Amino acid sequence: MLVVQKYGGTSVASTDRIANVARRVIEYKKRGDDLVVVVSAMSGETDRLLGLAHSIGKFPDEREVDVLIATGEQVTSALLAITLKEMGHDAVSVLGHQVPIVTDSAFGKARISDIDETKIRTELKGNKIVVVPGFQGVDEAGNITTLGRGGSDTTAVAVAAALKADMCEIYTDVDGVYTTDPNITNKARRLDRISYDEMLEMASLGAKVLQIRSVEMAKKYKVPLMVKSSLIEGKGTLVCEEVPEMEQVVVSGVTYNKNEAKITVDDVPDKPGIASRLFSRLAEANIVVDMIVQNVSHDKKTDITFTVAKADAKKALKIMQEQAAEIGAKGVEAAEGIAKVSIVGLGMRSHAGIAARMFDLLSAEGINIEMISTSEIKISCVIEEKYGELAVRTLHAGFGLDAEDVQEEK
Amino acid sequence: MLVVQKYGGTSVASTDRIANVARRVIEYKKRGDDLVVVVSAMSGETDRLLGLAHSIGKFPDEREVDVLIATGEQVTSALLAITLKEMGHDAVSVLGHQVPIVTDSAFGKARISDIDETKIRTELKGNKIVVVPGFQGVDEAGNITTLGRGGSDTTAVAVAAALKADMCEIYTDVDGVYTTDPNITNKARRLDRISYDEMLEMASLGAKVLQIRSVEMAKKYKVPLMVKSSLIEGKGTLVCEEVPEMEQVVVSGVTYNKNEAKITVDDVPDKPGIASRLFSRLAEANIVVDMIVQNVSHDKKTDITFTVAKADAKKALKIMQEQAAEIGAKGVEAAEGIAKVSIVGLGMRSHAGIAARMFDLLSAEGINIEMISTSEIKISCVIEEKYGELAVRTLHAGFGLDAEDVQEEK
Repeated sequence: MLVVQKYGGTSVASTDRIANVARRVIEYKKRGDDLVVVVSAMSGETDRLLGLAHSIGKFPDEREVDVLIATGEQVTSALLAITLKEMGHDAVSVLGHQVPIVTDSAFGKARISDIDETKIRTELKGNKIVVVPGFQGVDEAGNITTLGRGGSDTTAVAVAAALKADMCEIYTDVDGVYTTDPNITNKARRLDRISYDEMLEMASLGAKVLQIRSVEMAKKYKVPLMVKSSLIEGKGTLVCEEVPEMEQVVVSGVTYNKNEAKITVDDVPDKPGIASRLFSRLAEANIVVDMIVQNVSHDKKTDITFTVAKADAKKALKIMQEQAAEIGAKGVEAAEGIAKVSIVGLGMRSHAGIAARMFDLLSAEGINIEMISTSEIKISCVIEEKYGELAVRTLHAGFGLDAEDVQEEK
Repeated sequence: MLVVQKYGGTSVASTDRIANVARRVIEYKKRGDDLVVVVSAMSGETDRLLGLAHSIGKFPDEREVDVLIATGEQVTSALLAITLKEMGHDAVSVLGHQVPIVTDSAFGKARISDIDETKIRTELKGNKIVVVPGFQGVDEAGNITTLGRGGSDTTAVAVAAALKADMCEIYTDVDGVYTTDPNITNKARRLDRISYDEMLEMASLGAKVLQIRSVEMAKKYKVPLMVKSSLIEGKGTLVCEEVPEMEQVVVSGVTYNKNEAKITVDDVPDKPGIASRLFSRLAEANIVVDMIVQNVSHDKKTDITFTVAKADAKKALKIMQEQAAEIGAKGVEAAEGIAKVSIVGLGMRSHAGIAARMFDLLSAEGINIEMISTSEIKISCVIEEKYGELAVRTLHAGFGLDAEDVQEEK
């Protein structure tokens, strides 16, 4: 079996932890697997290097910042290869430009365009464990690039896709994907399996286990992804293509996000181009908008409500106030103190009445719903922040996700 | 003018110091020079990285150690390029594998075999300041290599040679090459000029201003080398081809080394192959021998005396004791507590009586000479260690090198 394993910054934070990683890698090697190991920078190292760059200037040259921060993963790769050899197993580091992992030239947020598998394949045939630094690549002109925060997950999936690996294992500090945040309810349960689409909805909603780009790529190339703990032994969660059984589980997880603010523009003239204009201004200001809700209009006027990260709320409000004046809207209101709870599940597509059941469950607890937005496999409600955790526990129990209700796969 | 400048670890030890380097580079740029800047790792960084590697195992894999420590110079290169751009001057880092600086595959002590000047030349034509990390290269197979301690000097000279630069400036923490160690006599004087050959003799004798490999390479490719301080303004010392005027100065410098021990093998049978046998054993044990003295033989027996670094003395003594028994020599004696003083100067070749004058000066101070060894432009004497500094001051004055005796070039 050909396995790509990825270890994050906390798993390689010291030479002792790197030794733990090496022992795990060797276990796999001993059972006969071919192994490619993708590593992040030692935790804190990328921030230390960025700190140096930003002490020089507010906007350090992006090409050179990539040259700088790519060293973090290079150091870990060398240390892991040294450790593996020290433990008696042949290993070799293959850097981004040595693979090569070819990207575009968008320094700091490059996208992988091509991975040449030849070099890695040759080293594997030589019975070596191949160590690849995550996060880094090289553009067509030979410049060093980096993939952006969390890019190491993407490197692992991309390498797995290029090699047509049997499995891509992401080792992190949690032991899998949970039905909801275990900090909110101790009845949260690790999922044995989840589809790429559900994972995408979970990830974008705040279950920060995997980089969303890596899940998109895994889905595109059908790479089976296993999320596992690097600290404790366990089965982890398999993220994979959907299979018919998955639809029998109506709701796979409940997610929760209280880091957003809500902004409403009142009495927007209902004319073509208005919404586009509002949201273009936000995009220009690099503000990411999450939910957008617009209802049917009355008297050629409608309200548009959207949510943004709390950190962007002030800026977004200011932009909207300018816009409201220009387009002749009545006014703009902003509200913090909100929370978004969502249920995610493939089964929604084939089971009627899930939304109604969600609203029922919330209302039975006296929780008022301020905004609703739905996708094919997700329903999100914005509620008052103070009810957020109650809502999560209610929905988790109400959709049968609580630990004691479910027969775990053995 | 095309100038290659090299800055060592202490000159780039912090972002503040890197800013100082950038300001100096920009001064040159402003007067119209094309500039290539070679940088070392921030001081302490190479040792920190090696410390990590050696905490894993006593003999960490050499290939991977090079991958590890090459990051030190990469970081400095990126930081300097960022700083130069921040100050409004276009700059670009070009790493060892990007140049490429091609070396053999002797990891940790690679030798440069070829430098392709195309990439650097193109960047210079684009009016950019080119920053090249010292110390690192790439072998034919694409593996990262390093040149060994002090390798950044060698990188600078090699790049200067490849580009046929007008000047290679080595910035260090001293302001040039001195007639002797200023810690021994305050009458030591900075030399305005010194020949490659004299510098080689000075360097190997302990005046640790320049890597000896870099001087050899500068001599081979006739690269004019300027040694300057990165901290204070000054003229520095030009290391260059010899010109006739140089021979008028009989002695250019006095060097001093008290880190050696002396070993004598008594009554060695005077037969062909014996000396070769003795010193082969030392070479096999990686012991570097400095002076070797053998005098004429009496009764087919002779004494052979040599010096080694104090750290190797014990090992060398043991090897010699075994050898002495095998070849039928009478015995072996070792002595520490010695010092070697040497005078170096091109003028010796054409001036008679320099050696006699040296012995006279020493004997006038009651200093006994234990060993003598000479080359074309150097005379070395081993004396008792306690007289070492007196000997240096005596010779420095006796050969007219003291600061007040000489009219400095203005």
